[in-house]
Amino acid sequence: MSISGRDIAALWQAVREKRPLVHNITNWVVTNITANALLAIGASPVMAHALEEVAEMTLLAQALVLNIGTLTAPVVEAMVRAGQAARQKGIPVVLDPVGAGATAMRTESARRILREVPVTILRGNASEIAVTGGYEAKTIGVDAGESPAEPAEIARSVARKLGLTVAVTGPVDYVSDGRRLVAVKNGHPMLTHVTGTGCMATAITGALAAVCPQDPLLAAAAALAGYGLAAEKAAAKTKGPGSFAVNLFDALFGLTAEEIADGARVEVLS
Amino acid sequence: MSISGRDIAALWQAVREKRPLVHNITNWVVTNITANALLAIGASPVMAHALEEVAEMTLLAQALVLNIGTLTAPVVEAMVRAGQAARQKGIPVVLDPVGAGATAMRTESARRILREVPVTILRGNASEIAVTGGYEAKTIGVDAGESPAEPAEIARSVARKLGLTVAVTGPVDYVSDGRRLVAVKNGHPMLTHVTGTGCMATAITGALAAVCPQDPLLAAAAALAGYGLAAEKAAAKTKGPGSFAVNLFDALFGLTAEEIADGARVEVLS
Amino acid sequence: MSISGRDIAALWQAVREKRPLVHNITNWVVTNITANALLAIGASPVMAHALEEVAEMTLLAQALVLNIGTLTAPVVEAMVRAGQAARQKGIPVVLDPVGAGATAMRTESARRILREVPVTILRGNASEIAVTGGYEAKTIGVDAGESPAEPAEIARSVARKLGLTVAVTGPVDYVSDGRRLVAVKNGHPMLTHVTGTGCMATAITGALAAVCPQDPLLAAAAALAGYGLAAEKAAAKTKGPGSFAVNLFDALFGLTAEEIADGARVEVLS
Repeated sequence: MSISGRDIAALWQAVREKRPLVHNITNWVVTNITANALLAIGASPVMAHALEEVAEMTLLAQALVLNIGTLTAPVVEAMVRAGQAARQKGIPVVLDPVGAGATAMRTESARRILREVPVTILRGNASEIAVTGGYEAKTIGVDAGESPAEPAEIARSVARKLGLTVAVTGPVDYVSDGRRLVAVKNGHPMLTHVTGTGCMATAITGALAAVCPQDPLLAAAAALAGYGLAAEKAAAKTKGPGSFAVNLFDALFGLTAEEIADGARVEVLS
Repeated sequence: MSISGRDIAALWQAVREKRPLVHNITNWVVTNITANALLAIGASPVMAHALEEVAEMTLLAQALVLNIGTLTAPVVEAMVRAGQAARQKGIPVVLDPVGAGATAMRTESARRILREVPVTILRGNASEIAVTGGYEAKTIGVDAGESPAEPAEIARSVARKLGLTVAVTGPVDYVSDGRRLVAVKNGHPMLTHVTGTGCMATAITGALAAVCPQDPLLAAAAALAGYGLAAEKAAAKTKGPGSFAVNLFDALFGLTAEEIADGARVEVLS
Repeated sequence: MSISGRDIAALWQAVREKRPLVHNITNWVVTNITANALLAIGASPVMAHALEEVAEMTLLAQALVLNIGTLTAPVVEAMVRAGQAARQKGIPVVLDPVGAGATAMRTESARRILREVPVTILRGNASEIAVTGGYEAKTIGVDAGESPAEPAEIARSVARKLGLTVAVTGPVDYVSDGRRLVAVKNGHPMLTHVTGTGCMATAITGALAAVCPQDPLLAAAAALAGYGLAAEKAAAKTKGPGSFAVNLFDALFGLTAEEIADGARVEVLS
């Protein structure tokens, strides 16, 4: 069984039509490319991290994306406050626990956000998700990390434990809401040679969740399938990570409903 | 009547010859592309936002560009201090009130900067300019916003009210110093699919103002015409926002005096 | 006499095989491109600047890169703390004193880091290096600056005075450990039209130092030769700074051992 490419295409189309405002509190490395990824798919990005204004900005938004990639104490406070505004407004929140496991501050901040903010979707690599979910692991850097078990199992067990939707990305992406488990088989290895490609996946997940708040698993799987498909298309004519990154924005922008319907590969495992 | 393309080309040439140092205190999203836009046109960018050094840096510069896109309280303080150094040195100051109207902090910060800093040119979209000028409006995000009236009228009335030059950008850009009003008809819709294209316009306006401090309206119109022309050139061979952004830097770099003289479309409306 | 291209190629190959984790505390303008440059050459970048976590992150890394391009007081504190962790672990530290001489804060911060951190390699333009080394000079902006003497002489005398390896980059790069002096003749003028190309050189120097900690002069010369070679390759098919920057990442990624062995031009002057 699989989630239909047509359903996924419909969600991507909804982003282009509704242009959801996605409020990002993210890291220094990816602010520009995250905003561009959201614009390329038709969403409307906004970045704001001052404690004085984050709640007000979140209340204007249709989704909130939190990313701890270059966290500081004031920015984590701002994330918590924005998350509380998201709770008040009832909009989806996506958390990317970049580097959880690498330092105590990252692990503790990711866990604190999960306690104090109604996170809808948690997106990371296997190691980051395992650590954030309370398992022992050690991330080495932010792009790698030994996983304590199979990524599919990590997705499902952390989703159950935390009561939310989890997306573990890697060569195959796994998304689970604790009950269902799906595998997303789109993507391309070139994504590992460009910084922030995971962070862009997270932001795009926020945009899809904004137009599909009733089914976060479908939103996350749709986001990763379409994004992976754009990466496949971008890689076809690439000479290295520089041209791949450029092509990726072009591909996200140009992706047609037909291409998504035909190319999305999301299998329901259980 | 129109401002001659030849006059505009002469100002762009002056930037390449004088290489004005433009001090930017700008947002996290656009630091890199702002610096690259300034380098591409032949100016010399510098970024510095620490309270301890901003005044000293501004005193070295030929123009100061302030942009509140990811403002925090300390950075707003730094902007005010840098602005006071700009007053002391007598160099032009350009303010981009990104997101004014979206949150109270942005609206108040933009207005405070206008009170405490001798802003020469205010550049934003119609909604941001209207709010910053004291009109009621509500920005949704930073890329859109209902305008309370016609953009040309907003440009002129805010310019009169605040006693400075205002550039309202959109499908057609309007620049007014309160007395004169001009329309800049260069540009391309692809600019709306790349983040920070407004911020780059602001920074380039700073560079042009540096070489034409005696006529801020001419400087702003020249900046927007040349920038829009580069966008037209870039869009001609583009496949999406990724390649458009790359082409835009190439086009800014390669723009010849002849191309500017022939292609600039600046009409004097009154 | 010259350093063999084969030796340089071997170091670049070692980076691809060992994938050293390079911890960067760098400026807002270049975070993204620095991370991408490191990924392109096969290294593993991490960015972290919170005082609470920098030491822990540095202890995971194989090199530390410090860059004061948009310094603030808390970030300078974090650099010092990370540097002390680097001392504890015995890994190389590379410092880029961006804008030293332009403001007192930059000059003093660069000198303070040199006093409190075991800097292995200091990389900057002639003016920045001269000022950081205690000579009088005045940087105008961060991309230019009058040099108080010949760059080769600055490299050698500052290296002797400070007891470390110095890389002065410019049309020809000079690297000295106080005893030896080498000239690196790779590179391309297009590098001066893209922001952060010096910062990328610094980060790449960190990656090479990680795999060659026993000979910082060789590491720095190898870094600058390979980077300059990639720039030459990128410039061959470029239409301006936008496409040049894209091609540069592709070239760094695709550079073969043969190309490096054949193309590196490092002369031992003494």
